[in-house]
Amino acid sequence: MILDSGTGLRTIRDYLEIGHSYADYVKLGWGTSVVSHRLEEKIALYREFEIPVCIGGTLFEVAYAQQKFPEFLQRACDLGVQMVEISDGTIDLEESEKLRCIETAAAKLRVISEYGSKDEATVRAPHYWVSGMKNELGAGAWKVIAEGRESGTSGLYRGTSELRTGLVEEIVDSIPQEKILWEAPQKGQQAWFIKEFGNEVNLGNIALKDIIPLETLRLGLRGDTLLTFHSTSKGI
Amino acid sequence: MILDSGTGLRTIRDYLEIGHSYADYVKLGWGTSVVSHRLEEKIALYREFEIPVCIGGTLFEVAYAQQKFPEFLQRACDLGVQMVEISDGTIDLEESEKLRCIETAAAKLRVISEYGSKDEATVRAPHYWVSGMKNELGAGAWKVIAEGRESGTSGLYRGTSELRTGLVEEIVDSIPQEKILWEAPQKGQQAWFIKEFGNEVNLGNIALKDIIPLETLRLGLRGDTLLTFHSTSKGI
Amino acid sequence: MILDSGTGLRTIRDYLEIGHSYADYVKLGWGTSVVSHRLEEKIALYREFEIPVCIGGTLFEVAYAQQKFPEFLQRACDLGVQMVEISDGTIDLEESEKLRCIETAAAKLRVISEYGSKDEATVRAPHYWVSGMKNELGAGAWKVIAEGRESGTSGLYRGTSELRTGLVEEIVDSIPQEKILWEAPQKGQQAWFIKEFGNEVNLGNIALKDIIPLETLRLGLRGDTLLTFHSTSKGI
Repeated sequence: MILDSGTGLRTIRDYLEIGHSYADYVKLGWGTSVVSHRLEEKIALYREFEIPVCIGGTLFEVAYAQQKFPEFLQRACDLGVQMVEISDGTIDLEESEKLRCIETAAAKLRVISEYGSKDEATVRAPHYWVSGMKNELGAGAWKVIAEGRESGTSGLYRGTSELRTGLVEEIVDSIPQEKILWEAPQKGQQAWFIKEFGNEVNLGNIALKDIIPLETLRLGLRGDTLLTFHSTSKGI
Repeated sequence: MILDSGTGLRTIRDYLEIGHSYADYVKLGWGTSVVSHRLEEKIALYREFEIPVCIGGTLFEVAYAQQKFPEFLQRACDLGVQMVEISDGTIDLEESEKLRCIETAAAKLRVISEYGSKDEATVRAPHYWVSGMKNELGAGAWKVIAEGRESGTSGLYRGTSELRTGLVEEIVDSIPQEKILWEAPQKGQQAWFIKEFGNEVNLGNIALKDIIPLETLRLGLRGDTLLTFHSTSKGI
Repeated sequence: MILDSGTGLRTIRDYLEIGHSYADYVKLGWGTSVVSHRLEEKIALYREFEIPVCIGGTLFEVAYAQQKFPEFLQRACDLGVQMVEISDGTIDLEESEKLRCIETAAAKLRVISEYGSKDEATVRAPHYWVSGMKNELGAGAWKVIAEGRESGTSGLYRGTSELRTGLVEEIVDSIPQEKILWEAPQKGQQAWFIKEFGNEVNLGNIALKDIIPLETLRLGLRGDTLLTFHSTSKGI
């Protein structure tokens, strides 16, 4: 899942022309879709490359805090996007409320929910992650995102970008791998997940400029994963 | 104030098309305007989007050190830019000399002066900043920039990017906010100024790719400032 | 030497239009040339700007590990690139084998060899670097690259990006400066080499967006090198 953090149209086309087949969907990060000019053209551009578009979860949180959740959903439908993210990375949201929002949204659009706080200092115990993720999938989320931010320094990661591996282990013990999307913006983080869970692992918050570099990691065509995959890699 | 650190023309157009209304002016960083091909086209491009162009202060310092200050001013006029920056971040310049240069330049162009050293290890006491900034505004500077570099690791900031908040407090006690332009290239630095001084605060050294992300911070549409602004933000 | 880490065609053209005269050659990093769509167009684009293209060394290592070294060379010839990099940054390769590969490749294409490990924890003593580099030049390498990675955190550098200056000194005592290409992706690293060895020093792993900023460092038009070169710099 690509993260579009407010990128111009030529640059998007540029990176999709050389790597579109390696991108599955794109998230219009947080509230960027509200302030970006030419939004309809941007959505049409992703459609041209057959990449479904997701509205970022922070915008859901803003709408919810303003008691405008129905308007949020309506706007997503009007824009013609295929997905919305439901998160509580910043606002306080009762679990029952979050599940109700997921259910409501899932009746209209594909929903990705996100678990984990954007606050570096806030880390809940692994069993909360597991039960939260299970419940969100049960409420209708198509996949659940494990929070990492654009920076890779909160949620799954310590402020130093170091992965909380114990947390990851507990999650994968209880949730099917294909239902999880790991936010992993940094190369070292991406390489870790690929080496640990194989080259089909779902990774998110990938910058447009990292589409090609990430694909080389998946295929063992970069130093970081060469020794893991060289016997099976696509090679030359 | 956007920082153009040597960006190509399509990329500039790309980011202005989706966010030009959030940018007030652009600085052609340090001496990039000397080595960049197609400079006239670049200046015309910013003019097309009605964004005034400023020549970076390090180029003034080079010219001054070479005793070519008049040629520097003449070249800026010939290029058709609207602004020049007068700084002493690298060279030693007597205050009286700096004020004389500001006065001379202000007779021809809009002048932004810059206070603070580019050397991470050089930090003058706050009272020097305050008196220096006052004198530079008195000599004809339209606004005064508080140094932060492209990296956000000197001047206002420690080498770790941490803001010298005591310094900032002393500055705002004595200089009107609208007369100060804070260099704040990093997201955390931008969020701090917005939360502290409101979403109209003048920020500089903003990368082109950060035009949209910064606007979301100003409007409370990103996690970092959502709780500060959600009751008033533009929302959906 | 520019590092193309999987960049789109418009962006490449964009940066070459404003700075092509400051770039001598470009490396298609690691295995990016295998996964990038429109590769022939990319190579043609660099040819249009008369910038020779080099296939990255990690792809050689993948091919070697798969016993496909001849196919690697043939593919490079078929693509019409001018250069290949022979390295052993990730795989184990006997010195005699590496020298044989350099010799074989040099019969068909211009060869750049690379010395140093991509593993941050692996650092051989300086005398190994010196004898290895000498032998690689003797085997037909046109120049030899001192490893730094895209990140500037291994080979020549500690994990903190700090340069191993003792290593550099021993290398330049024995190898002619014009035969060495120092990988130096970070501004501080570039400034160090320029101040130490003059503004014609060969630097590699330069991002496209850093073509103009690096040229300003070479000419003393940026704070980091202004005081070193101001009396001789191109100026305004």
